[in-house]
Amino acid sequence: MKGFGFRLAATDGRARTGIIDTPRGRIRTPAFMPVGTAGTVKAMLPDSVRATGADILLGNTYHLMLRPGAERVARLGGLHRFMNWERPILTDSGGFQVMSLAALRKLSEQGVRFSSHIDGSRHLLSPETSMEIQRLLGSDIVMAFDECPALPADRAAIEASMRLSMRWAARSRDAFGDRPGHALFGIQQGGLEPDLRAASAEALRAIGFDGYAIGGLAVGEGQAAMFGVLDYAPGMLPEDRPRYLMGVGKPDDIVGAVVRGIDMMDCVLPTRSGRTGQAFTRRGAVNLKNARHADDPRPLDEGCPCPACRGYSRAYLHHLIRAGEILGAMLLTWHNLQYYQDLMAGLRGAIAAGRLADFVAGFEAARAGGDIAPP
Amino acid sequence: MKGFGFRLAATDGRARTGIIDTPRGRIRTPAFMPVGTAGTVKAMLPDSVRATGADILLGNTYHLMLRPGAERVARLGGLHRFMNWERPILTDSGGFQVMSLAALRKLSEQGVRFSSHIDGSRHLLSPETSMEIQRLLGSDIVMAFDECPALPADRAAIEASMRLSMRWAARSRDAFGDRPGHALFGIQQGGLEPDLRAASAEALRAIGFDGYAIGGLAVGEGQAAMFGVLDYAPGMLPEDRPRYLMGVGKPDDIVGAVVRGIDMMDCVLPTRSGRTGQAFTRRGAVNLKNARHADDPRPLDEGCPCPACRGYSRAYLHHLIRAGEILGAMLLTWHNLQYYQDLMAGLRGAIAAGRLADFVAGFEAARAGGDIAPP
Repeated sequence: MKGFGFRLAATDGRARTGIIDTPRGRIRTPAFMPVGTAGTVKAMLPDSVRATGADILLGNTYHLMLRPGAERVARLGGLHRFMNWERPILTDSGGFQVMSLAALRKLSEQGVRFSSHIDGSRHLLSPETSMEIQRLLGSDIVMAFDECPALPADRAAIEASMRLSMRWAARSRDAFGDRPGHALFGIQQGGLEPDLRAASAEALRAIGFDGYAIGGLAVGEGQAAMFGVLDYAPGMLPEDRPRYLMGVGKPDDIVGAVVRGIDMMDCVLPTRSGRTGQAFTRRGAVNLKNARHADDPRPLDEGCPCPACRGYSRAYLHHLIRAGEILGAMLLTWHNLQYYQDLMAGLRGAIAAGRLADFVAGFEAARAGGDIAPP
Repeated sequence: MKGFGFRLAATDGRARTGIIDTPRGRIRTPAFMPVGTAGTVKAMLPDSVRATGADILLGNTYHLMLRPGAERVARLGGLHRFMNWERPILTDSGGFQVMSLAALRKLSEQGVRFSSHIDGSRHLLSPETSMEIQRLLGSDIVMAFDECPALPADRAAIEASMRLSMRWAARSRDAFGDRPGHALFGIQQGGLEPDLRAASAEALRAIGFDGYAIGGLAVGEGQAAMFGVLDYAPGMLPEDRPRYLMGVGKPDDIVGAVVRGIDMMDCVLPTRSGRTGQAFTRRGAVNLKNARHADDPRPLDEGCPCPACRGYSRAYLHHLIRAGEILGAMLLTWHNLQYYQDLMAGLRGAIAAGRLADFVAGFEAARAGGDIAPP
């Protein structure tokens, strides 16, 4: 773990703010990681992603192994050079997406054999192949290979899956080896069962990781159930290591997770929503497709510094989305990423100042007021 | 025409370089105008379009009148503010696209009644409505309303269409009136018939315009036939006014047109091609979809200053296009517009230096060598 480290700077209640140091730069926590699925944060240039305040991106092992292929990325100098993003990259293990996207999956103790959803080619993802692929990509933060069951599922299935994931976590640790400057994170599973979460955390701590993720949430259980787990699960993980909540979430999910002690998150929501006309603002979500915006000369959010809000009217954004123009996806993606990063910056500042409760109250009050009335 | 003017700075053979002055800024000629069909140069932010060296954009009356509607654009402050481009905009008259895109067209002396290809709504485009729509959009350079027949067509049809277009040109002039700082361009028609081109030019000169376009080319006649017309048609138009060749073209079309005395051009080719993986380079067209690029670490064009060439490999661009990623369209559109603007800058400099023949020889030699060999 040389060259990689985590420093807590301040706490407020269970919430934490700090810095993850990596050879490729610092990650301010709590951090939101934009998702660059196939080697690109969709509809964004890397410089623009950085301009929103992102310190780290997430890349998807499943997508990249299938196209363009991890060996090819390695020959081309690694994922950072390939996608022109020199700051840190976290890669997932492929475990989640192989179960949701691949065809003809066959799960065994060894791993998952599957067919590519792109061309039908046969592949194996296992702790060992996932570590090798993430090494070839040049990932800074590598995720252990796990299985993530969909919820609801019965307790026996959740437990069996968690036990398998813990055996895979140990194999991931062995296969990862010693890679100075690169970190390996373990992933807690256990569904909504406190004792399984505790057993999973204990297993991970026994193996020892550079950071710990909470997996198996945001898979259909609902916010209340997720917060229920987050009320206790972060506390089961080492305090001196980053805690990463995978695949979360909506802005209020993010705030609720940070309040409960989460340091890192990722989600496709700001980018995916940007391509379908949904914008996130201080006043809540705004659907730019709606005809109410067709004649509105005002910006989407008058307080936002992004190009969509500085240069354009809601009427124009509405027009772009209705006309299916790529610029609509570009501008709304940028705005949404800016909103998410500004939210993270606000959370970090509030925690550092010991004023998180005030910040959350303001966040909720602004949303409760709803969007501005039509002109 | 107050506030609008054209100054010739130098000539080389029939080729010309100069400046069109407008209240919204200078247009260096020969000029290539990127096409912003529906209020956006597809996949580009306006600042990026400007960064490639574009002095003026083209907007499409037909598209904008149907969506979002000219009255709406006017209420929102005009097309410049709507699309966040404060420099000059030329709008076409709608005449070309109503014949190629609209449904249920009915052509009469009055104009063209048609149904929107978007929602079936009924509209009339005529010299008077086209002038009004272009006024509402706030266009800096307004095009007279004309009919553009597809080629090949028989001489009688070409002549009848040209005569109609000349009557419409006179009505366009009357309807345009006196609008200081805004220019009205007439459009020469006449197909491939020298005497009809001459009659059209005479009719336009008698009416009097701020600039003169050559229409009815690049509609299927082939480059040799087009150059055949360009060998004489520009000389029929006033020397002291800009000459605009509509809808042209490929890089070699552009060079051939400039050599023959054309000052302005527009074409969807660099933007449309950018969305399908075709790039224009000094060495000719390159199809990034081709598997030969899959492992190529070199830039598309090592001499190009655009972000696609400065930041990325051919392998990455290939990956983006294969994966259908929006960033592929963004980067290749940027590159293509940069290539076109650099070509125009090269032509302007060569004309000013009296070295156009050398420039053209170099242009052709570089293309004759073809693309770089695979690594």
